[in-house]
Amino acid sequence: MNYKAINLDEKFGLFTEQWQPKVIAEMNDYQFKVVKLQGDFIWHDHKDTDETFIVIEGTLRIDFLDGAVSIGPGEMFVVPKGVEHKPYAEHEVRLMLIEPRGLRNTGDEGGERTAANDVWI
Amino acid sequence: MNYKAINLDEKFGLFTEQWQPKVIAEMNDYQFKVVKLQGDFIWHDHKDTDETFIVIEGTLRIDFLDGAVSIGPGEMFVVPKGVEHKPYAEHEVRLMLIEPRGLRNTGDEGGERTAANDVWI
Repeated sequence: MNYKAINLDEKFGLFTEQWQPKVIAEMNDYQFKVVKLQGDFIWHDHKDTDETFIVIEGTLRIDFLDGAVSIGPGEMFVVPKGVEHKPYAEHEVRLMLIEPRGLRNTGDEGGERTAANDVWI
Repeated sequence: MNYKAINLDEKFGLFTEQWQPKVIAEMNDYQFKVVKLQGDFIWHDHKDTDETFIVIEGTLRIDFLDGAVSIGPGEMFVVPKGVEHKPYAEHEVRLMLIEPRGLRNTGDEGGERTAANDVWI
């Protein structure tokens, strides 16, 4: 059989739009997604699951009600379930998300930042 | 509260031993582990779960019964559950594993490559 590794830079080279996560792999009922972000996301939480952010390029800030974390290239952070957070990036950031299949990116908040699910690249 | 990103290079700088995965983060019932490998692992599979390999530095080869995949820096691969595989690295490779908490690295095979679980760094 022909096995092939998934190259993150190659995946990021396939699209330019921001805020639209693309699935690149699955592990059991979890999905790995790549996304480009710039600017402000909305405040939201995920009641039933943690969510993992791995920064590939650029810097992501995640604001919490009682603080913030800055995540640079080669760094990761797991937002615990139920914790309200708001991602923000001054300049475009490339990151990989890991979360359960079917999770809505905006939690229960909805709104214009809500992205389509299960879009593969 | 004081939030801090997890820096992978910093974690790799904290140990030198090979074949001993260290937990750096958890997402629900999954763990993120960093490990340094060189040489041959054993043939094994995981009956109940997929397993994710993300290469940070170096090159990892995973042999399958009917092929092989080469995974370089910035690349990842998910080994499906039940698929027999054997990791191999000619030179030391630094990688991150993502797998359910409590999974035995050698599957049902055991042996000297079996590592302690739940060692945090």
